Amino acid sequence: MKRIAVLTSGGDAPGMNAAIRAVVRKGHYEGMEVYGINYGYAGLVAGDIRKLTRRDVGDKISRGGTFLYSARYPEFATEEGQLKGIEQLKKFGIEGLVVIGGDGSYMGAAALTRHGYPTVALPGTIDNDIPGTDFCIGFDTAINTVLDSVDKIRDTATSHVRTFIIEVMGRNAGDIALWTGVAGGAEQIVIPDIDFNMEEIANTIQKGRERGKKHSIIILAEGVMNGNEFAEELSKFGDYQARVTVLGHVQRGGSPTARDRVLSSVFGARAVDLLKVGRGGLCVGIVDNKIVENDIIETLNTKKHMPDVSLYKLNQEISY
Amino acid sequence: MKRIAVLTSGGDAPGMNAAIRAVVRKGHYEGMEVYGINYGYAGLVAGDIRKLTRRDVGDKISRGGTFLYSARYPEFATEEGQLKGIEQLKKFGIEGLVVIGGDGSYMGAAALTRHGYPTVALPGTIDNDIPGTDFCIGFDTAINTVLDSVDKIRDTATSHVRTFIIEVMGRNAGDIALWTGVAGGAEQIVIPDIDFNMEEIANTIQKGRERGKKHSIIILAEGVMNGNEFAEELSKFGDYQARVTVLGHVQRGGSPTARDRVLSSVFGARAVDLLKVGRGGLCVGIVDNKIVENDIIETLNTKKHMPDVSLYKLNQEISY
Amino acid sequence: MKRIAVLTSGGDAPGMNAAIRAVVRKGHYEGMEVYGINYGYAGLVAGDIRKLTRRDVGDKISRGGTFLYSARYPEFATEEGQLKGIEQLKKFGIEGLVVIGGDGSYMGAAALTRHGYPTVALPGTIDNDIPGTDFCIGFDTAINTVLDSVDKIRDTATSHVRTFIIEVMGRNAGDIALWTGVAGGAEQIVIPDIDFNMEEIANTIQKGRERGKKHSIIILAEGVMNGNEFAEELSKFGDYQARVTVLGHVQRGGSPTARDRVLSSVFGARAVDLLKVGRGGLCVGIVDNKIVENDIIETLNTKKHMPDVSLYKLNQEISY
Amino acid sequence: MKRIAVLTSGGDAPGMNAAIRAVVRKGHYEGMEVYGINYGYAGLVAGDIRKLTRRDVGDKISRGGTFLYSARYPEFATEEGQLKGIEQLKKFGIEGLVVIGGDGSYMGAAALTRHGYPTVALPGTIDNDIPGTDFCIGFDTAINTVLDSVDKIRDTATSHVRTFIIEVMGRNAGDIALWTGVAGGAEQIVIPDIDFNMEEIANTIQKGRERGKKHSIIILAEGVMNGNEFAEELSKFGDYQARVTVLGHVQRGGSPTARDRVLSSVFGARAVDLLKVGRGGLCVGIVDNKIVENDIIETLNTKKHMPDVSLYKLNQEISY
Repeated sequence: MKRIAVLTSGGDAPGMNAAIRAVVRKGHYEGMEVYGINYGYAGLVAGDIRKLTRRDVGDKISRGGTFLYSARYPEFATEEGQLKGIEQLKKFGIEGLVVIGGDGSYMGAAALTRHGYPTVALPGTIDNDIPGTDFCIGFDTAINTVLDSVDKIRDTATSHVRTFIIEVMGRNAGDIALWTGVAGGAEQIVIPDIDFNMEEIANTIQKGRERGKKHSIIILAEGVMNGNEFAEELSKFGDYQARVTVLGHVQRGGSPTARDRVLSSVFGARAVDLLKVGRGGLCVGIVDNKIVENDIIETLNTKKHMPDVSLYKLNQEISY
Repeated sequence: MKRIAVLTSGGDAPGMNAAIRAVVRKGHYEGMEVYGINYGYAGLVAGDIRKLTRRDVGDKISRGGTFLYSARYPEFATEEGQLKGIEQLKKFGIEGLVVIGGDGSYMGAAALTRHGYPTVALPGTIDNDIPGTDFCIGFDTAINTVLDSVDKIRDTATSHVRTFIIEVMGRNAGDIALWTGVAGGAEQIVIPDIDFNMEEIANTIQKGRERGKKHSIIILAEGVMNGNEFAEELSKFGDYQARVTVLGHVQRGGSPTARDRVLSSVFGARAVDLLKVGRGGLCVGIVDNKIVENDIIETLNTKKHMPDVSLYKLNQEISY
Repeated sequence: MKRIAVLTSGGDAPGMNAAIRAVVRKGHYEGMEVYGINYGYAGLVAGDIRKLTRRDVGDKISRGGTFLYSARYPEFATEEGQLKGIEQLKKFGIEGLVVIGGDGSYMGAAALTRHGYPTVALPGTIDNDIPGTDFCIGFDTAINTVLDSVDKIRDTATSHVRTFIIEVMGRNAGDIALWTGVAGGAEQIVIPDIDFNMEEIANTIQKGRERGKKHSIIILAEGVMNGNEFAEELSKFGDYQARVTVLGHVQRGGSPTARDRVLSSVFGARAVDLLKVGRGGLCVGIVDNKIVENDIIETLNTKKHMPDVSLYKLNQEISY
Repeated sequence: MKRIAVLTSGGDAPGMNAAIRAVVRKGHYEGMEVYGINYGYAGLVAGDIRKLTRRDVGDKISRGGTFLYSARYPEFATEEGQLKGIEQLKKFGIEGLVVIGGDGSYMGAAALTRHGYPTVALPGTIDNDIPGTDFCIGFDTAINTVLDSVDKIRDTATSHVRTFIIEVMGRNAGDIALWTGVAGGAEQIVIPDIDFNMEEIANTIQKGRERGKKHSIIILAEGVMNGNEFAEELSKFGDYQARVTVLGHVQRGGSPTARDRVLSSVFGARAVDLLKVGRGGLCVGIVDNKIVENDIIETLNTKKHMPDVSLYKLNQEISY
């Protein structure tokens, strides 16, 4: 291929800019032209497409968000939208596409694949819930952002008898809560992947107090319930003086970490390597510390992301 | 005086440790013994008092929180509590006391002063709402913590039509909201000190949208109402896709900034200078960039902290 | 005035972007057009000038550096250069100029003033060495950057018998070293403003060791000598296992702190207020926590920045 | 085993505290007593050993450095030292030892193993140069610290024609330089593992300039030469206005990242699992994203850490 394009779709994630940069630079290195599509699939269908120069990606590696903007665009689920998108790509003479994003982005990439359009998907979501990869672009940054808040709360937690509930992102997956719970030394981790019992949580806090422990930190994945609801449920078992922190979109921002930037760069370059030799219909990932590519349709059909629940058990053993 | 003590009281604030360190080190430099009282006035009454060595304050200047712990202790409002506290101090041969904290701490210091016990108060609260000083220990750190979150939200705010509401501390005072609003380029600042009109806010967001502006950031001081309530009120005027962030106790933590550490150190040393020559009944502050001391009772009776509302007007002019 | 311009000159400083933004937004608010000049006085003479829109300064408040670029341009010291610059401004119909920078920038602004061109200068330099202001744009950020490094070195300093020398910026002024020395709890501060005696420094380290203190941190302003020279000089008095850190241009970068952003915004808006009513020949500053403007020629002739050397004495008393 | 001990040795690394905490907490969870040895092998031989409680490791997970202190102790290379160390352990009734550190620490652990004393080694060094693991405790934090400096320099690099040389740690291994070079978008990476040609580097800078690129960032591993030497060598091929940053021990400090804390916690718990069932003579690592243990003597004899030089090639392709 001599001309490819790249878009970011769905919720943005730190490192998306680094991945775009790698696609552009590596593309140029291989003698290709690289086009950028604004606003994800919406911009694809609308033809919001422009050639990217070396300079367009200068100074972007350290920036959070995505300079191509991202958007949710449910309309791309229709065949009409998909064909219109392919038409736009052909109009610009673009022979292959790199899609960076989460769940919905992968669905779109699979649809384009079914229509025979060469597409490579890169996993980009702080939720880390994409099949076919151990880690997604943005996850490492997000957990460090959350951790910074956990540490700050711990600074101030020493003197009052209090329970701090920190609501973190993760509608379906507990990865953020698990990693930040272990890294932050949280007394409790509550995630959608593992059942919990509010009374047991209350008992554990109570026992801690009897041992002289004054405060507890609970990391709660939003997929379970929201922080205020949790505080209210907990209060039915005793007065635990709960204070709620809701980090919200703070978790999506920030300059990407070293690891997210390296991963993004490696993923972006690999996508170009694949398209260069005409390979599409793939999703790139890191599995067991190796960069891999898999059939995207098969991956979506047969694989499911599983958080590392061994961290849950570990935390119970060392952060009581 | 040859023997003084120091305590921290009320909500903790970054820089309290730096202030304690300065009291201890400067005290030693002046040939005094310095005692630490744990848990604020509660520990004072209970006699939870110990001599502090050079080493006790080593490596503390960079730490958030207070290693002497802090506590709210409403019982100190009674004369009985106050006299018991003075008795404890005398039992240890302590001739003067440095109190670091906010509102309630100042009340306690004023009470001790009325009983004739030499006390110097230092303003320590992230809310920055203490009379007799332009800036309190912890405020500079807190606004940088909030700002970091505003920046992260801005990273991710570009593509969706959304309104971000960031609830920050400030029950009675809008200082945190004002400074972080200006520094973060927030479109709206809502504080207890200035009336607001929800419809106007909605209109401003609406006009911004019509001009092509997709997102708005609103900094809301908790003293006005909480973030979820605000989002609900706002939704009565249109669908502004509000997303709420509640930073909570995150704002109290963190390693103090350079300015907070320098201010704390200067304040702590000044308190020792005053007690050394037998002067009590004072509160130390920084006014017009000069370190000053004022009669604490008079200050509490006649002065009131006023946030710099000129920042509000400035923000309306440059962050629309 | 209806049309003004802004440039940044000399070494860049965090907060310059926030100041430019304030000039542009406040100018628009007052019904003016605002032009940006790239590369400081060099771009002024070359006519590298363009109109700035609201959007040009969107998302810039949090960025380090200056998006108008900065440059040193000694040629502006000649009358020829100055007249050429004024000619360019007139060609664009620009009636007044805001200059943001340090020493050299102020000289340029004074020269334009002598030629009768309305100019307002804002102090922007991490060195904090401009007359007519207590604080310059960028200083607060720079000291927090240095402090972060001091803290990290302290983390690792506990077990080995070592002396850490941290060379910081400050050719003529010791402000960075003074503030970070106090804030970092450095055992020694070495600045151009105060004589030092290497043998005494060696003795102090030696005495610390005899007391059981294993490590010492020395903050050295580059204006005294460079870190390696200092280490060599020190080694003549004993083996103090010196390790040198040279932060270099790291100190100029970084997202500006809350205080630098607020100060920059207030300064920028004030410059517009002055030009709006036709006042030029001024430099804006913050003195005793009040925003002031002074005659720039008089300020350069009669005032001199003095670092707060009381911090030096304080540090000797509390950080031995 | 019912009683084990833990020590940290060699250069300290962020995450060592988190690993100690995991050893202590997991040990307690398994019904063991856990002892801490101060100052590494030096303290082992000297018998500087104490029982660690739950509370001793409270609030330590977020701290840089090692609260057990670390030390280099070449004397432990002698059989006499080793036998003395084992004698001390037996005196305290300690049945197994966890050693956290780098190269020298592993040699000591292997020596204890040869004498039949059950020892488990955990890789802790920012250099990341230990055989038997892909990643060492502290590496992830160190690269993020370096990256922060690279970003700050990039902020300020835009307007002057300059070459920034950043000297980073890595005497024998280029891992820090490789990862931060890619993550920071450095134009050049110079490491001990790959030959370089100064003239080629100069030519690349020159060509960049001719293309309009004004600045270059070079990440230099200290194992190649020091920053000033490099600047001087480079100047023989032209005036590249080199500015040198030497981060030094800054790289060893800082609060550990999420990944370093999770890795440390998992490693620490695994060490306890192994000793619990009487297994010693092992070193724990993460290989292909799996936690593994290997025979320590065999590992030292047959394996060698190799940096991921594919990153070098990648950087040449995308960061020119």
